[in-house]
Amino acid sequence: MERFCESVLRVRYVETDQMGIAHHANYLSWYEIGRTDLCREAGFSYRAIEEKGYLLVVTQVNSRYRKPFLYDDQVVVQTSIGQIASRSILFRYRLFDSSRKVVHADGETSHLWLDSGTRRPVTAPAELTAAFERFRRDGGDSESP
Amino acid sequence: MERFCESVLRVRYVETDQMGIAHHANYLSWYEIGRTDLCREAGFSYRAIEEKGYLLVVTQVNSRYRKPFLYDDQVVVQTSIGQIASRSILFRYRLFDSSRKVVHADGETSHLWLDSGTRRPVTAPAELTAAFERFRRDGGDSESP
Amino acid sequence: MERFCESVLRVRYVETDQMGIAHHANYLSWYEIGRTDLCREAGFSYRAIEEKGYLLVVTQVNSRYRKPFLYDDQVVVQTSIGQIASRSILFRYRLFDSSRKVVHADGETSHLWLDSGTRRPVTAPAELTAAFERFRRDGGDSESP
Amino acid sequence: MERFCESVLRVRYVETDQMGIAHHANYLSWYEIGRTDLCREAGFSYRAIEEKGYLLVVTQVNSRYRKPFLYDDQVVVQTSIGQIASRSILFRYRLFDSSRKVVHADGETSHLWLDSGTRRPVTAPAELTAAFERFRRDGGDSESP
Repeated sequence: MERFCESVLRVRYVETDQMGIAHHANYLSWYEIGRTDLCREAGFSYRAIEEKGYLLVVTQVNSRYRKPFLYDDQVVVQTSIGQIASRSILFRYRLFDSSRKVVHADGETSHLWLDSGTRRPVTAPAELTAAFERFRRDGGDSESP
Repeated sequence: MERFCESVLRVRYVETDQMGIAHHANYLSWYEIGRTDLCREAGFSYRAIEEKGYLLVVTQVNSRYRKPFLYDDQVVVQTSIGQIASRSILFRYRLFDSSRKVVHADGETSHLWLDSGTRRPVTAPAELTAAFERFRRDGGDSESP
Repeated sequence: MERFCESVLRVRYVETDQMGIAHHANYLSWYEIGRTDLCREAGFSYRAIEEKGYLLVVTQVNSRYRKPFLYDDQVVVQTSIGQIASRSILFRYRLFDSSRKVVHADGETSHLWLDSGTRRPVTAPAELTAAFERFRRDGGDSESP
Repeated sequence: MERFCESVLRVRYVETDQMGIAHHANYLSWYEIGRTDLCREAGFSYRAIEEKGYLLVVTQVNSRYRKPFLYDDQVVVQTSIGQIASRSILFRYRLFDSSRKVVHADGETSHLWLDSGTRRPVTAPAELTAAFERFRRDGGDSESP
Protein backbone atom coordinates (compact mmCIF):
# COMPACT_ATOMS: atom_id res chain seq x y z
CA MET A 1 0.00 0.00 0.00
CA GLU A 2 1.32 3.36 -1.16
CA ARG A 3 2.17 6.00 1.47
CA PHE A 4 0.20 9.20 1.16
CA CYS A 5 -0.09 12.59 2.75
CA GLU A 6 -3.59 13.74 3.63
CA SER A 7 -4.93 17.29 3.33
CA VAL A 8 -8.44 18.35 4.25
CA LEU A 9 -10.17 21.42 2.88
CA ARG A 10 -13.66 22.74 2.25
CA VAL A 11 -15.15 23.79 -1.09
CA ARG A 12 -15.26 27.60 -1.15
CA TYR A 13 -18.26 29.49 -2.51
CA VAL A 14 -16.05 31.15 -5.11
CA GLU A 15 -15.07 27.68 -6.33
CA THR A 16 -18.63 26.74 -7.31
CA ASP A 17 -20.05 27.46 -10.74
CA GLN A 18 -23.57 27.82 -12.09
CA MET A 19 -23.96 24.03 -12.30
CA GLY A 20 -23.98 24.23 -8.50
CA ILE A 21 -20.78 22.17 -8.19
CA ALA A 22 -17.10 22.90 -7.68
CA HIS A 23 -15.61 23.96 -11.01
CA HIS A 24 -13.12 21.43 -12.36
CA ALA A 25 -10.24 23.92 -12.62
CA ASN A 26 -10.12 24.20 -8.82
CA TYR A 27 -9.11 20.56 -8.50
CA LEU A 28 -5.69 21.58 -9.81
CA SER A 29 -5.33 23.99 -6.89
CA TRP A 30 -6.36 21.23 -4.51
CA TYR A 31 -3.77 18.89 -6.00
CA GLU A 32 -1.26 21.68 -5.48
CA ILE A 33 -2.22 21.90 -1.80
CA GLY A 34 -1.76 18.15 -1.61
CA ARG A 35 1.78 18.17 -2.95
CA THR A 36 2.68 21.24 -0.87
CA ASP A 37 1.60 19.36 2.25
CA LEU A 38 3.49 16.27 1.10
CA CYS A 39 6.67 18.32 0.65
CA ARG A 40 6.27 19.74 4.15
CA GLU A 41 5.67 16.26 5.56
CA ALA A 42 8.72 14.96 3.71
CA GLY A 43 10.77 17.57 5.51
CA PHE A 44 11.01 20.46 3.03
CA SER A 45 8.37 23.11 2.56
CA TYR A 46 7.91 24.03 -1.08
CA ARG A 47 8.64 27.61 -0.05
CA ALA A 48 12.04 26.48 1.22
CA ILE A 49 12.64 24.61 -2.04
CA GLU A 50 12.15 27.83 -4.02
CA GLU A 51 14.34 29.72 -1.55
CA LYS A 52 17.11 27.22 -2.27
CA GLY A 53 16.95 28.26 -5.93
CA TYR A 54 14.76 25.54 -7.46
CA LEU A 55 11.42 25.59 -9.20
CA LEU A 56 9.25 22.53 -9.63
CA VAL A 57 7.25 23.41 -12.74
CA VAL A 58 4.20 21.50 -13.96
CA THR A 59 4.69 19.78 -17.31
CA GLN A 60 1.54 17.65 -17.41
CA VAL A 61 -1.77 17.25 -15.61
CA ASN A 62 -4.31 14.46 -15.90
CA SER A 63 -7.49 14.64 -13.90
CA ARG A 64 -10.53 12.39 -13.85
CA TYR A 65 -13.81 13.65 -12.40
CA ARG A 66 -16.11 10.94 -11.05
CA LYS A 67 -18.51 12.59 -8.62
CA PRO A 68 -18.93 16.32 -8.06
CA PHE A 69 -18.17 18.21 -4.86
CA LEU A 70 -20.72 20.72 -3.61
CA TYR A 71 -20.22 24.00 -1.80
CA ASP A 72 -19.00 23.54 1.78
CA ASP A 73 -18.25 19.84 1.23
CA GLN A 74 -15.14 18.57 2.92
CA VAL A 75 -12.53 17.41 0.40
CA VAL A 76 -9.94 14.88 1.53
CA VAL A 77 -6.84 14.98 -0.69
CA GLN A 78 -4.54 11.96 -0.53
CA THR A 79 -1.24 12.66 -2.29
CA SER A 80 1.48 10.17 -3.05
CA ILE A 81 4.67 10.09 -5.10
CA GLY A 82 4.43 8.14 -8.32
CA GLN A 83 7.87 8.31 -9.83
CA ILE A 84 11.17 9.97 -8.97
CA ALA A 85 13.69 10.61 -11.72
CA SER A 86 16.81 12.72 -11.67
CA ARG A 87 15.17 15.74 -13.26
CA SER A 88 11.48 15.07 -12.78
CA ILE A 89 8.88 13.79 -10.35
CA LEU A 90 5.30 12.61 -10.60
CA PHE A 91 2.65 13.05 -7.93
CA ARG A 92 -0.65 11.16 -7.68
CA TYR A 93 -3.84 12.40 -6.05
CA ARG A 94 -7.11 10.94 -4.93
CA LEU A 95 -9.95 13.13 -3.72
CA PHE A 96 -12.43 11.65 -1.25
CA ASP A 97 -15.39 12.96 0.68
CA SER A 98 -15.09 13.00 4.45
CA SER A 99 -16.00 9.29 4.69
CA ARG A 100 -12.75 8.54 2.83
CA LYS A 101 -14.63 5.76 1.02
CA VAL A 102 -15.90 7.41 -2.15
CA VAL A 103 -13.34 8.63 -4.69
CA HIS A 104 -14.65 11.84 -6.25
CA ALA A 105 -11.65 12.42 -8.49
CA ASP A 106 -8.11 11.34 -9.10
CA GLY A 107 -5.20 12.61 -11.09
CA GLU A 108 -1.48 12.93 -11.65
CA THR A 109 0.86 15.85 -12.21
CA SER A 110 4.33 15.64 -13.76
CA HIS A 111 7.00 18.13 -12.81
CA LEU A 112 10.42 19.20 -13.97
CA TRP A 113 13.14 20.64 -11.73
CA LEU A 114 14.41 24.01 -12.92
CA ASP A 115 17.17 26.27 -11.69
CA SER A 116 15.21 29.37 -10.70
CA GLY A 117 17.96 31.66 -11.99
CA THR A 118 18.50 30.21 -15.44
CA ARG A 119 15.05 28.60 -15.77
CA ARG A 120 16.81 25.56 -17.22
CA PRO A 121 16.22 21.92 -16.24
CA VAL A 122 18.55 20.66 -13.54
CA THR A 123 19.13 17.52 -11.56
CA ALA A 124 17.01 17.58 -8.42
CA PRO A 125 19.01 18.43 -5.30
CA ALA A 126 20.13 15.19 -3.67
CA GLU A 127 18.67 16.00 -0.26
CA LEU A 128 15.22 16.54 -1.79
CA THR A 129 15.33 13.36 -3.82
CA ALA A 130 16.41 11.50 -0.70
CA ALA A 131 13.58 13.05 1.32
CA PHE A 132 11.00 12.13 -1.30
CA GLU A 133 12.35 8.58 -1.51
CA ARG A 134 12.23 8.28 2.26
CA PHE A 135 8.66 9.59 2.27
CA ARG A 136 7.61 7.05 -0.33
CA ARG A 137 9.32 4.23 1.55
CA ASP A 138 8.29 4.97 5.08
CA GLY A 139 6.12 8.04 5.22
CA GLY A 140 8.59 10.86 5.71
CA ASP A 141 10.72 12.05 8.56
CA SER A 142 7.79 12.27 10.92
CA GLU A 143 5.95 9.28 12.36
CA SER A 144 2.60 10.40 11.00
CA PRO A 145 0.83 10.89 8.45
CA MET B 1 -6.33 18.89 -41.57
CA GLU B 2 -8.68 19.19 -38.62
CA ARG B 3 -11.05 22.15 -38.47
CA PHE B 4 -10.65 24.35 -35.45
CA CYS B 5 -12.17 27.39 -33.85
CA GLU B 6 -9.77 30.13 -32.80
CA SER B 7 -10.03 32.28 -29.67
CA VAL B 8 -7.58 35.00 -28.70
CA LEU B 9 -7.09 36.25 -25.17
CA ARG B 10 -4.46 37.94 -23.04
CA VAL B 11 -2.88 36.60 -19.84
CA ARG B 12 -4.38 38.53 -16.92
CA TYR B 13 -2.26 39.73 -14.03
CA VAL B 14 -4.36 37.69 -11.61
CA GLU B 15 -3.50 34.60 -13.68
CA THR B 16 0.24 34.89 -12.99
CA ASP B 17 1.92 33.27 -10.01
CA GLN B 18 5.15 33.95 -8.16
CA MET B 19 7.15 32.04 -10.78
CA GLY B 20 6.28 34.99 -13.02
CA ILE B 21 4.28 32.85 -15.43
CA ALA B 22 0.61 32.02 -15.99
CA HIS B 23 -0.44 29.43 -13.41
CA HIS B 24 -1.28 26.07 -14.99
CA ALA B 25 -4.83 25.91 -13.56
CA ASN B 26 -5.84 28.86 -15.76
CA TYR B 27 -5.25 26.85 -18.91
CA LEU B 28 -8.42 24.92 -18.05
CA SER B 29 -10.37 28.17 -18.14
CA TRP B 30 -8.80 29.02 -21.47
CA TYR B 31 -9.76 25.60 -22.85
CA GLU B 32 -13.28 26.34 -21.61
CA ILE B 33 -13.30 29.62 -23.54
CA GLY B 34 -12.16 27.66 -26.59
CA ARG B 35 -15.01 25.17 -26.48
CA THR B 36 -17.53 27.90 -25.65
CA ASP B 37 -16.45 29.74 -28.79
CA LEU B 38 -16.54 26.52 -30.79
CA CYS B 39 -20.13 25.87 -29.65
CA ARG B 40 -21.12 29.39 -30.69
CA GLU B 41 -19.41 28.95 -34.06
CA ALA B 42 -21.15 25.60 -34.53
CA GLY B 43 -24.45 27.41 -34.12
CA PHE B 44 -25.37 26.90 -30.45
CA SER B 45 -24.06 29.02 -27.61
CA TYR B 46 -23.28 26.94 -24.55
CA ARG B 47 -25.64 29.23 -22.66
CA ALA B 48 -28.45 28.16 -25.02
CA ILE B 49 -27.48 24.50 -24.53
CA GLU B 50 -27.99 24.86 -20.76
CA GLU B 51 -31.25 26.74 -21.33
CA LYS B 52 -32.49 23.76 -23.36
CA GLY B 53 -31.99 21.61 -20.24
CA TYR B 54 -28.61 20.02 -20.87
CA LEU B 55 -25.32 20.14 -19.04
CA LEU B 56 -22.00 19.18 -20.60
CA VAL B 57 -19.96 18.15 -17.58
CA VAL B 58 -16.22 17.57 -17.60
CA THR B 59 -15.18 13.97 -16.90
CA GLN B 60 -11.50 14.16 -17.77
CA VAL B 61 -8.80 16.72 -18.49
CA ASN B 62 -5.32 16.15 -19.86
CA SER B 63 -3.02 19.09 -20.31
CA ARG B 64 0.60 19.30 -21.39
CA TYR B 65 2.65 22.39 -20.67
CA ARG B 66 5.54 23.02 -23.05
CA LYS B 67 6.43 26.70 -22.82
CA PRO B 68 5.10 29.18 -20.28
CA PHE B 69 2.96 32.21 -21.03
CA LEU B 70 3.87 35.52 -19.40
CA TYR B 71 1.65 38.32 -18.18
CA ASP B 72 0.01 40.25 -21.02
CA ASP B 73 1.04 37.65 -23.61
CA GLN B 74 -1.51 36.95 -26.28
CA VAL B 75 -2.78 33.37 -26.13
CA VAL B 76 -4.23 31.84 -29.27
CA VAL B 77 -6.52 28.90 -28.47
CA GLN B 78 -7.30 26.52 -31.31
CA THR B 79 -10.13 24.14 -30.40
CA SER B 80 -11.31 21.15 -32.36
CA ILE B 81 -13.64 18.23 -31.81
CA GLY B 82 -11.94 14.92 -31.19
CA GLN B 83 -14.72 12.41 -30.85
CA ILE B 84 -18.50 12.50 -30.84
CA ALA B 85 -20.42 9.68 -29.17
CA SER B 86 -24.09 9.48 -28.28
CA ARG B 87 -23.55 10.52 -24.67
CA SER B 88 -20.12 12.09 -24.70
CA ILE B 89 -17.82 14.36 -26.63
CA LEU B 90 -14.12 15.10 -26.61
CA PHE B 91 -12.52 18.46 -27.39
CA ARG B 92 -8.87 19.09 -28.27
CA TYR B 93 -6.94 22.29 -27.68
CA ARG B 94 -3.67 23.79 -28.79
CA LEU B 95 -2.35 27.01 -27.30
CA PHE B 96 -0.07 29.17 -29.43
CA ASP B 97 1.55 32.53 -29.03
CA SER B 98 0.49 35.26 -31.43
CA SER B 99 2.83 33.95 -34.17
CA ARG B 100 0.67 30.77 -34.26
CA LYS B 101 3.89 28.81 -34.81
CA VAL B 102 4.98 27.82 -31.32
CA VAL B 103 2.75 25.44 -29.35
CA HIS B 104 2.87 26.46 -25.68
CA ALA B 105 0.44 23.80 -24.47
CA ASP B 106 -2.07 21.28 -25.67
CA GLY B 107 -4.76 19.20 -24.08
CA GLU B 108 -8.05 17.36 -24.26
CA THR B 109 -11.24 17.44 -22.23
CA SER B 110 -13.88 14.68 -22.15
CA HIS B 111 -17.49 15.54 -21.44
CA LEU B 112 -20.70 13.76 -20.63
CA TRP B 113 -24.18 15.00 -21.53
CA LEU B 114 -26.49 15.29 -18.52
CA ASP B 115 -30.14 16.18 -18.18
CA SER B 116 -29.94 19.32 -16.06
CA GLY B 117 -33.05 18.36 -14.10
CA THR B 118 -32.18 14.79 -13.14
CA ARG B 119 -28.40 15.20 -13.44
CA ARG B 120 -28.34 11.82 -15.17
CA PRO B 121 -26.48 10.96 -18.40
CA VAL B 122 -28.57 11.37 -21.53
CA THR B 123 -28.17 11.01 -25.25
CA ALA B 124 -26.99 14.29 -26.71
CA PRO B 125 -29.76 16.23 -28.46
CA ALA B 126 -29.71 15.32 -32.14
CA GLU B 127 -29.49 18.91 -33.38
CA LEU B 128 -26.38 19.51 -31.27
CA THR B 129 -24.69 16.33 -32.41
CA ALA B 130 -25.51 17.25 -35.99
CA ALA B 131 -24.11 20.76 -35.50
CA PHE B 132 -20.88 19.42 -33.99
CA GLU B 133 -20.50 16.90 -36.81
CA ARG B 134 -21.08 19.63 -39.36
CA PHE B 135 -18.49 21.80 -37.63
CA ARG B 136 -15.95 19.03 -37.69
CA ARG B 137 -16.63 18.28 -41.34
CA ASP B 138 -16.77 21.74 -42.80
CA GLY B 139 -16.15 24.31 -40.14
CA GLY B 140 -19.61 25.14 -38.85
CA ASP B 141 -22.59 26.97 -40.22
CA SER B 142 -20.60 30.08 -40.90
CA GLU B 143 -18.07 30.51 -43.68
CA SER B 144 -15.23 31.39 -41.38
CA PRO B 145 -13.26 29.06 -39.31
CA MET C 1 -14.72 44.61 22.44
CA GLU C 2 -16.49 43.21 19.40
CA ARG C 3 -17.07 39.45 19.16
CA PHE C 4 -15.47 37.78 16.20
CA CYS C 5 -15.17 34.42 14.56
CA GLU C 6 -11.67 33.29 13.65
CA SER C 7 -10.68 31.34 10.53
CA VAL C 8 -7.15 30.24 9.70
CA LEU C 9 -5.94 29.45 6.20
CA ARG C 10 -2.73 29.35 4.21
CA VAL C 11 -1.91 31.34 1.07
CA ARG C 12 -2.12 28.96 -1.89
CA TYR C 13 0.43 29.02 -4.69
CA VAL C 14 -2.31 29.75 -7.22
CA GLU C 15 -3.21 32.83 -5.15
CA THR C 16 0.19 34.48 -5.66
CA ASP C 17 0.94 36.75 -8.59
CA GLN C 18 4.15 37.82 -10.31
CA MET C 19 4.81 40.45 -7.63
CA GLY C 20 5.45 37.43 -5.41
CA ILE C 21 2.53 38.25 -3.09
CA ALA C 22 -1.05 37.10 -2.70
CA HIS C 23 -3.17 38.83 -5.34
CA HIS C 24 -5.65 41.29 -3.82
CA ALA C 25 -8.73 39.66 -5.40
CA ASN C 26 -8.21 36.58 -3.23
CA TYR C 27 -8.85 38.59 -0.07
CA LEU C 28 -12.53 38.65 -1.08
CA SER C 29 -12.57 34.85 -1.04
CA TRP C 30 -10.92 34.89 2.39
CA TYR C 31 -13.53 37.35 3.68
CA GLU C 32 -16.14 34.93 2.30
CA ILE C 33 -14.59 32.07 4.26
CA GLY C 34 -14.71 34.29 7.33
CA ARG C 35 -18.41 35.02 7.07
CA THR C 36 -19.19 31.39 6.18
CA ASP C 37 -17.46 30.31 9.38
CA LEU C 38 -19.25 33.03 11.35
CA CYS C 39 -22.63 31.79 10.06
CA ARG C 40 -21.74 28.24 11.09
CA GLU C 41 -20.64 29.45 14.51
CA ALA C 42 -23.85 31.45 14.88
CA GLY C 43 -25.76 28.22 14.36
CA PHE C 44 -26.65 28.25 10.64
CA SER C 45 -24.33 27.12 7.88
CA TYR C 46 -24.59 29.36 4.83
CA ARG C 47 -25.42 26.20 2.87
CA ALA C 48 -28.46 25.68 5.11
CA ILE C 49 -29.44 29.33 4.60
CA GLU C 50 -29.56 28.80 0.83
CA GLU C 51 -31.44 25.54 1.29
CA LYS C 52 -34.09 27.46 3.23
CA GLY C 53 -34.62 29.59 0.13
CA TYR C 54 -32.53 32.68 0.86
CA LEU C 55 -29.55 34.25 -0.84
CA LEU C 56 -27.25 36.73 0.86
CA VAL C 57 -25.87 38.69 -2.10
CA VAL C 58 -22.94 41.07 -1.93
CA THR C 59 -23.83 44.71 -2.62
CA GLN C 60 -20.60 46.39 -1.60
CA VAL C 61 -17.01 45.54 -0.75
CA ASN C 62 -14.35 47.77 0.77
CA SER C 63 -10.90 46.38 1.34
CA ARG C 64 -7.72 48.03 2.57
CA TYR C 65 -4.35 46.38 1.96
CA ARG C 66 -1.65 47.27 4.46
CA LYS C 67 0.98 44.55 4.31
CA PRO C 68 1.20 41.77 1.75
CA PHE C 69 0.86 38.05 2.44
CA LEU C 70 3.37 35.69 0.89
CA TYR C 71 2.92 32.16 -0.41
CA ASP C 72 2.38 29.64 2.39
CA ASP C 73 1.84 32.37 5.01
CA GLN C 74 -0.83 31.65 7.55
CA VAL C 75 -3.72 34.10 7.30
CA VAL C 76 -5.88 34.65 10.38
CA VAL C 77 -9.30 36.04 9.44
CA GLN C 78 -11.30 37.67 12.25
CA THR C 79 -14.89 38.30 11.18
CA SER C 80 -17.51 40.27 13.07
CA ILE C 81 -20.98 41.62 12.39
CA GLY C 82 -21.13 45.35 11.82
CA GLN C 83 -24.78 46.11 11.34
CA ILE C 84 -28.00 44.13 11.16
CA ALA C 85 -30.99 45.62 9.39
CA SER C 86 -34.24 43.97 8.34
CA ARG C 87 -33.12 43.38 4.76
CA SER C 88 -29.36 43.74 4.96
CA ILE C 89 -26.31 42.91 7.01
CA LEU C 90 -22.73 44.15 7.14
CA PHE C 91 -19.70 42.04 8.02
CA ARG C 92 -16.28 43.33 9.05
CA TYR C 93 -12.97 41.54 8.58
CA ARG C 94 -9.44 41.89 9.85
CA LEU C 95 -6.61 39.79 8.43
CA PHE C 96 -3.64 39.05 10.67
CA ASP C 97 -0.53 36.97 10.39
CA SER C 98 -0.17 34.05 12.77
CA SER C 99 1.07 36.32 15.59
CA ARG C 100 -2.38 37.99 15.55
CA LYS C 101 -0.62 41.30 16.22
CA VAL C 102 -0.04 42.75 12.76
CA VAL C 103 -3.09 43.69 10.67
CA HIS C 104 -2.33 42.92 7.02
CA ALA C 105 -5.71 44.01 5.69
CA ASP C 106 -9.20 44.90 6.76
CA GLY C 107 -12.49 45.35 5.04
CA GLU C 108 -16.27 45.29 5.08
CA THR C 109 -18.90 43.64 2.91
CA SER C 110 -22.55 44.69 2.69
CA HIS C 111 -25.21 42.15 1.84
CA LEU C 112 -28.86 42.07 0.89
CA TRP C 113 -31.27 39.22 1.65
CA LEU C 114 -32.99 37.85 -1.45
CA ASP C 115 -35.67 35.24 -1.92
CA SER C 116 -33.83 32.65 -4.00
CA GLY C 117 -36.93 31.95 -6.09
CA THR C 118 -37.94 35.47 -7.05
CA ARG C 119 -34.47 37.03 -6.62
CA ARG C 120 -36.20 39.96 -4.90
CA PRO C 121 -35.16 41.60 -1.60
CA VAL C 122 -36.90 40.16 1.44
CA THR C 123 -36.88 40.62 5.17
CA ALA C 124 -34.25 38.36 6.70
CA PRO C 125 -35.74 35.26 8.34
CA ALA C 126 -36.32 36.03 12.03
CA GLU C 127 -34.37 33.03 13.28
CA LEU C 128 -31.28 34.11 11.33
CA THR C 129 -31.47 37.69 12.51
CA ALA C 130 -31.87 36.43 16.06
CA ALA C 131 -28.87 34.12 15.66
CA PHE C 132 -26.70 36.92 14.27
CA GLU C 133 -27.76 39.24 17.10
CA ARG C 134 -27.01 36.56 19.65
CA PHE C 135 -23.60 36.03 18.04
CA ARG C 136 -22.80 39.70 18.18
CA ARG C 137 -23.94 39.93 21.80
CA ASP C 138 -22.36 36.84 23.25
CA GLY C 139 -20.47 34.96 20.62
CA GLY C 140 -23.00 32.53 19.19
CA ASP C 141 -24.68 29.40 20.44
CA SER C 142 -21.41 27.72 21.17
CA GLU C 143 -19.11 28.66 24.04
CA SER C 144 -16.14 29.24 21.81
CA PRO C 145 -14.18 31.21 20.97
CA MET D 1 -17.10 64.64 -19.03
CA GLU D 2 -14.30 62.39 -17.79
CA ARG D 3 -12.16 60.55 -20.35
CA PHE D 4 -12.23 56.82 -20.07
CA CYS D 5 -10.72 53.75 -21.64
CA GLU D 6 -13.10 51.01 -22.67
CA SER D 7 -12.48 47.26 -22.39
CA VAL D 8 -14.95 44.58 -23.43
CA LEU D 9 -14.94 41.04 -22.10
CA ARG D 10 -17.30 38.12 -21.61
CA VAL D 11 -18.20 36.43 -18.32
CA ARG D 12 -16.37 33.09 -18.22
CA TYR D 13 -18.06 29.93 -16.96
CA VAL D 14 -15.43 29.58 -14.25
CA GLU D 15 -16.38 33.06 -13.04
CA THR D 16 -19.96 32.06 -12.21
CA ASP D 17 -20.97 30.70 -8.82
CA GLN D 18 -23.87 28.59 -7.63
CA MET D 19 -26.15 31.65 -7.46
CA GLY D 20 -25.90 31.51 -11.26
CA ILE D 21 -24.17 34.91 -11.48
CA ALA D 22 -20.60 36.15 -11.82
CA HIS D 23 -18.92 35.94 -8.42
CA HIS D 24 -18.11 39.37 -6.99
CA ALA D 25 -14.37 38.67 -6.59
CA ASN D 26 -13.97 38.53 -10.37
CA TYR D 27 -14.93 42.19 -10.71
CA LEU D 28 -11.52 43.02 -9.23
CA SER D 29 -9.88 41.15 -12.11
CA TRP D 30 -12.05 43.04 -14.57
CA TYR D 31 -11.07 46.35 -12.99
CA GLU D 32 -7.47 45.20 -13.38
CA ILE D 33 -8.03 44.58 -17.09
CA GLY D 34 -9.50 48.06 -17.31
CA ARG D 35 -6.51 49.80 -15.81
CA THR D 36 -4.10 47.62 -17.83
CA ASP D 37 -5.84 48.75 -21.01
CA LEU D 38 -5.83 52.36 -19.82
CA CYS D 39 -2.06 52.19 -19.22
CA ARG D 40 -1.55 50.80 -22.71
CA GLU D 41 -3.76 53.50 -24.19
CA ALA D 42 -1.86 56.16 -22.23
CA GLY D 43 1.31 54.93 -23.93
CA PHE D 44 2.87 52.55 -21.39
CA SER D 45 1.89 48.93 -21.00
CA TYR D 46 1.81 47.86 -17.37
CA ARG D 47 4.28 45.15 -18.33
CA ALA D 48 6.71 47.84 -19.48
CA ILE D 49 6.14 49.73 -16.22
CA GLU D 50 7.26 46.68 -14.23
CA GLU D 51 10.20 46.16 -16.57
CA LYS D 52 11.32 49.73 -15.78
CA GLY D 53 11.54 48.68 -12.11
CA TYR D 54 8.24 49.94 -10.71
CA LEU D 55 5.30 48.18 -9.10
CA LEU D 56 1.86 49.73 -8.77
CA VAL D 57 0.45 47.91 -5.75
CA VAL D 58 -3.19 48.02 -4.68
CA THR D 59 -3.79 49.70 -1.34
CA GLN D 60 -7.58 49.95 -1.38
CA VAL D 61 -10.55 48.65 -3.33
CA ASN D 62 -14.16 49.79 -3.16
CA SER D 63 -16.74 48.05 -5.29
CA ARG D 64 -20.50 48.45 -5.49
CA TYR D 65 -22.63 45.73 -7.06
CA ARG D 66 -25.93 46.93 -8.52
CA LYS D 67 -27.05 44.32 -11.03
CA PRO D 68 -25.51 40.90 -11.58
CA PHE D 69 -23.79 39.69 -14.72
CA LEU D 70 -24.65 36.25 -16.06
CA TYR D 71 -22.48 33.68 -17.82
CA ASP D 72 -21.52 34.74 -21.34
CA ASP D 73 -22.77 38.31 -20.81
CA GLN D 74 -20.66 41.00 -22.37
CA VAL D 75 -19.10 43.28 -19.77
CA VAL D 76 -18.08 46.78 -20.82
CA VAL D 77 -15.46 48.24 -18.47
CA GLN D 78 -14.99 52.01 -18.56
CA THR D 79 -11.87 53.05 -16.67
CA SER D 80 -10.80 56.57 -15.82
CA ILE D 81 -8.18 58.22 -13.64
CA GLY D 82 -9.50 59.73 -10.44
CA GLN D 83 -6.51 61.31 -8.80
CA ILE D 84 -2.80 61.54 -9.51
CA ALA D 85 -0.41 62.22 -6.63
CA SER D 86 3.36 61.99 -6.54
CA ARG D 87 3.39 58.51 -4.98
CA SER D 88 -0.13 57.25 -5.63
CA ILE D 89 -2.90 57.08 -8.17
CA LEU D 90 -6.59 56.30 -8.08
CA PHE D 91 -8.56 54.61 -10.86
CA ARG D 92 -12.35 54.59 -11.26
CA TYR D 93 -14.40 51.92 -13.01
CA ARG D 94 -17.91 51.55 -14.28
CA LEU D 95 -19.21 48.23 -15.58
CA PHE D 96 -21.99 48.29 -18.16
CA ASP D 97 -23.79 45.68 -20.20
CA SER D 98 -23.36 45.85 -23.97
CA SER D 99 -26.01 48.59 -24.30
CA ARG D 100 -23.66 50.87 -22.27
CA LYS D 101 -26.76 52.29 -20.58
CA VAL D 102 -27.16 50.19 -17.45
CA VAL D 103 -24.44 50.40 -14.81
CA HIS D 104 -24.01 46.94 -13.25
CA ALA D 105 -21.23 47.91 -10.88
CA ASP D 106 -18.76 50.65 -10.15
CA GLY D 107 -15.68 50.99 -8.02
CA GLU D 108 -12.33 52.57 -7.30
CA THR D 109 -8.86 51.24 -6.63
CA SER D 110 -6.04 53.14 -4.94
CA HIS D 111 -2.43 52.35 -5.75
CA LEU D 112 1.00 53.13 -4.45
CA TRP D 113 4.17 53.29 -6.54
CA LEU D 114 6.93 51.01 -5.28
CA ASP D 115 10.50 50.46 -6.36
CA SER D 116 10.42 46.82 -7.41
CA GLY D 117 13.88 46.20 -5.98
CA THR D 118 13.48 47.68 -2.52
CA ARG D 119 9.69 47.33 -2.35
CA ARG D 120 9.59 50.83 -0.85
CA PRO D 121 7.29 53.69 -1.91
CA VAL D 122 8.77 55.98 -4.52
CA THR D 123 7.77 59.01 -6.51
CA ALA D 124 6.11 57.93 -9.73
CA PRO D 125 8.39 58.24 -12.76
CA ALA D 126 7.79 61.63 -14.36
CA GLU D 127 7.08 60.25 -17.83
CA LEU D 128 4.31 58.01 -16.44
CA THR D 129 2.71 60.78 -14.44
CA ALA D 130 2.84 62.98 -17.53
CA ALA D 131 1.27 60.25 -19.65
CA PHE D 132 -1.54 59.68 -17.15
CA GLU D 133 -2.19 63.44 -16.92
CA ARG D 134 -2.27 63.69 -20.69
CA PHE D 135 -4.69 60.76 -20.82
CA ARG D 136 -6.97 62.38 -18.30
CA ARG D 137 -6.86 65.69 -20.14
CA ASP D 138 -7.26 64.60 -23.71
CA GLY D 139 -7.57 60.87 -23.93
CA GLY D 140 -4.02 59.63 -24.29
CA ASP D 141 -1.46 59.72 -27.04
CA SER D 142 -3.73 58.02 -29.51
CA GLU D 143 -6.75 59.61 -31.15
CA SER D 144 -9.11 56.99 -29.78
CA PRO D 145 -11.30 56.15 -28.00
